[in-house]
Amino acid sequence: MRKTAILLAAMAACLSVPLFPAVAFAENSPAAPPGENGGSHTPGHGDPYAIVFEGLAVVLVAASVGRWAARRLKHSPVLGELLAGIVAGALLYHVGNPAVVILRHADILSKAETTAMSEHVNWEKAVHSALGESGVGGEEAEKIRSVALREDYPKFATLYRSMRLFSSIGVILLLFMVGLESSLEGMRRVAGSALGVASLGVIAPFLLGYLVMFLLLPRGSDPNVPIFVGATFCATSIGITARVFRDTGFLESGEARIVLAAAVLDDILGLIVLAVVTGVVATGAVEVPAVGWILLKAILFLGLVILFGSYLMKRTIRYFTRLDPSHAKLLFPFTLLMLLAWAADAVGLAAIVGAFAAGLILDDEYFADLPVQAGGTVSIESIIAPIEGIFAPVFFVLMGMLVDAGSLADPKILLAGLILTVAAVAGKMVSSLPVKQGTDRLIVGIGMVPRGEVGLIFAGIGKGIGVLDDRMFSVVVTVVLLTTLVTPPLLGWAIRRKERREERTRAI
Amino acid sequence: MRKTAILLAAMAACLSVPLFPAVAFAENSPAAPPGENGGSHTPGHGDPYAIVFEGLAVVLVAASVGRWAARRLKHSPVLGELLAGIVAGALLYHVGNPAVVILRHADILSKAETTAMSEHVNWEKAVHSALGESGVGGEEAEKIRSVALREDYPKFATLYRSMRLFSSIGVILLLFMVGLESSLEGMRRVAGSALGVASLGVIAPFLLGYLVMFLLLPRGSDPNVPIFVGATFCATSIGITARVFRDTGFLESGEARIVLAAAVLDDILGLIVLAVVTGVVATGAVEVPAVGWILLKAILFLGLVILFGSYLMKRTIRYFTRLDPSHAKLLFPFTLLMLLAWAADAVGLAAIVGAFAAGLILDDEYFADLPVQAGGTVSIESIIAPIEGIFAPVFFVLMGMLVDAGSLADPKILLAGLILTVAAVAGKMVSSLPVKQGTDRLIVGIGMVPRGEVGLIFAGIGKGIGVLDDRMFSVVVTVVLLTTLVTPPLLGWAIRRKERREERTRAI
Repeated sequence: MRKTAILLAAMAACLSVPLFPAVAFAENSPAAPPGENGGSHTPGHGDPYAIVFEGLAVVLVAASVGRWAARRLKHSPVLGELLAGIVAGALLYHVGNPAVVILRHADILSKAETTAMSEHVNWEKAVHSALGESGVGGEEAEKIRSVALREDYPKFATLYRSMRLFSSIGVILLLFMVGLESSLEGMRRVAGSALGVASLGVIAPFLLGYLVMFLLLPRGSDPNVPIFVGATFCATSIGITARVFRDTGFLESGEARIVLAAAVLDDILGLIVLAVVTGVVATGAVEVPAVGWILLKAILFLGLVILFGSYLMKRTIRYFTRLDPSHAKLLFPFTLLMLLAWAADAVGLAAIVGAFAAGLILDDEYFADLPVQAGGTVSIESIIAPIEGIFAPVFFVLMGMLVDAGSLADPKILLAGLILTVAAVAGKMVSSLPVKQGTDRLIVGIGMVPRGEVGLIFAGIGKGIGVLDDRMFSVVVTVVLLTTLVTPPLLGWAIRRKERREERTRAI
Repeated sequence: MRKTAILLAAMAACLSVPLFPAVAFAENSPAAPPGENGGSHTPGHGDPYAIVFEGLAVVLVAASVGRWAARRLKHSPVLGELLAGIVAGALLYHVGNPAVVILRHADILSKAETTAMSEHVNWEKAVHSALGESGVGGEEAEKIRSVALREDYPKFATLYRSMRLFSSIGVILLLFMVGLESSLEGMRRVAGSALGVASLGVIAPFLLGYLVMFLLLPRGSDPNVPIFVGATFCATSIGITARVFRDTGFLESGEARIVLAAAVLDDILGLIVLAVVTGVVATGAVEVPAVGWILLKAILFLGLVILFGSYLMKRTIRYFTRLDPSHAKLLFPFTLLMLLAWAADAVGLAAIVGAFAAGLILDDEYFADLPVQAGGTVSIESIIAPIEGIFAPVFFVLMGMLVDAGSLADPKILLAGLILTVAAVAGKMVSSLPVKQGTDRLIVGIGMVPRGEVGLIFAGIGKGIGVLDDRMFSVVVTVVLLTTLVTPPLLGWAIRRKERREERTRAI
């Protein structure tokens, strides 16, 4: 523990160096224009994105420090990045860094922006009403208000949006790389097990979440709350798990394949649960046509990609390499990734499902006709790796920054969060029961545990439709974050355990 | 000419395929929330950046088609990217694509956003007043108003901002790569010539621009207008030239070194001119302390980087590689690039000057201690190349999209633009007179011609302080764009001319 404390302190100290300019910048904003297009009278180019360059540099250094600390503590690199985000986020939020305040309260500020844009009120009133609706009060509300009413708020909103954009790009790149390392054939082979895991991974967490929440709430509470908590528990965020599998070189195992395929299916199932639950909450009934439509779109998208993807790829790549031979091996995969991530989002699936599919249907051998000097011998993976190396850490650091250590200070929220986390973990552990013998159930179960950004989106919807009040929202977010934080160490342990066992078997 | 027309038509046809989803998306916006954080009731993740993925894919395909057309026509790839941007921009603007409308009228909409945020008016009134101030009327004003008042305006504003961000990242990556391929020592050797070129490259275009504008304007016009036009003509945008030098493998020539060094110095001189001119326009006097402060900051920044850069690099890299050995060769250069681009902007210089400096002071041999498996043998250039390959084309396509072909339809604006363009080109051609014998004056002169985004920023400031009215602004923008468009073919021709001459000399 002492070693951990020293390392965390060192980490915080290292972080504060690059962060100082950010803080200074935040306090005495220079004479930059509040708008976009350098319309100020101050000479200078005034690139409105210069602040984004600095923000990206800070996040990348934080991620490096985090990975270093994790390596020293023999933890997985992704945990280091998450912790770096938590430390940096807590520090910056404490000093009132506008970008982190916006990040933490994006829901309130986004509501204020919508109000200001659509209704006949000015910005100040829009912020006031959004704060009023949110139920946030006291010092925190003051912090949000003062950031929103800064003259240079748009600049920091741009910084926040840009970092969110980088984090979105980062996570789709990560899943694309995972898709490249996996094969469609391998996925097909585990389809049966994966369907079992995905189904049980939705049913068990829903029932457990519902039950525990029902028992925790006082009698006469809104019956929709446990339903919604159960729905949130169905989510699976594959980013963390995929990253741990990659970092440990475990991606080609049967367990990894099952978890990945199950996560894709779970995305569809989760959508259905969400549609059913929001329908029940809003109208008291299941909207069958809406649910059918969601299912149809998702199945059509995945079906088309899986059935015709590889065939179409071969033909399209032939034309594309004629169009732009010297960049084909960079631009074709990247453009495909962007298009499938967008298309997946358009049919209601997660963008990462499209990204994973893009990686699955691509293969280096489709580019075999390319001349050597145009990258014919370099793998797609190694060409895309640097782009992923820049953006993927942003996803994990930002997720860490979202953790509000302050909410854990409330013992009631912490206790409820811990109890529910046990239920949330147990629910997903159960999901691995259907897998065949010879597959490590522990790894599959733990791999399904993190709720990550999907859980946060679900919780956000629950808050948006008024089912979860501010405290319940904090509790659910706590659970989502705890499931995300416990996964890297647990999964690392389970993988090492399996490896040790295999070594022993081999030794005999 | 017929070949060109056919190819451009083919290009437009190819472009329209990926653009259709964009248009469809624009017309029937799905039930996505207008704000940021998926707060809608529609099930689905609703990644607010999914539209950015699509936009990026469209721009990358357009750039590929443009490069293909340019290759067929034996023109430089960068001209193809600019033309692809012009064609795509004209098409999309014509159909009222919100993102392109926002891109073209970012100044008006940014003013509206500032007004809505700072004054006690709502969004609709802010748009109305910004439109009134801008002087844009008729159909065009209606187009802008209808885009601004769409319910999903924030989504398209996010798309516009994201593409602008990518383009900023693209151009700093380009200059960073150019810096990597250049050496500090090489720059020092041409410092004398470069200072001469930069000085004359500011004085001659200023005088010529002032004179021609003065003669074109009716008597009794605002005397500040020719002064400001002259100031805009001082700008040098090195992006286009650097790209042509790279594409033709001409970066290591003496001419390329002189142009690059002169462009850096010109950035400082341009800042001073801008400070003096805006001071004269605003207060009627030169604000000596302000100008001195600008000069001091710029010289201090460049001086520190040049004097201590390499020394500091060696030491910092040693620590950084210990911190994060497996990512050091990607993350250290990239982070340095981001920090210096930000710092350059913070002292009032262009971000690209900082980016170029970052490339100059880095050297592969500083990473010699890295083990081979951590990329010890791979060059920084080849690690960063894929990131540049994605983002740099965005810069050139977006610059093409800014070209408003409609403004060229007004014969008066076109004529004034053409006359001024001749003056603008001639002014920069004169700048190469001070170079020593043996250096190709034509290449140096043409290399200084493009005004690019720097010229657009200057013109925007002129409009902002009310010196340039709407028509004068169109004229100046036309000049800026023409100087940018003529450079790739002219420079390509001059380089081939020199190469042919050298071959002949060698043959004798």
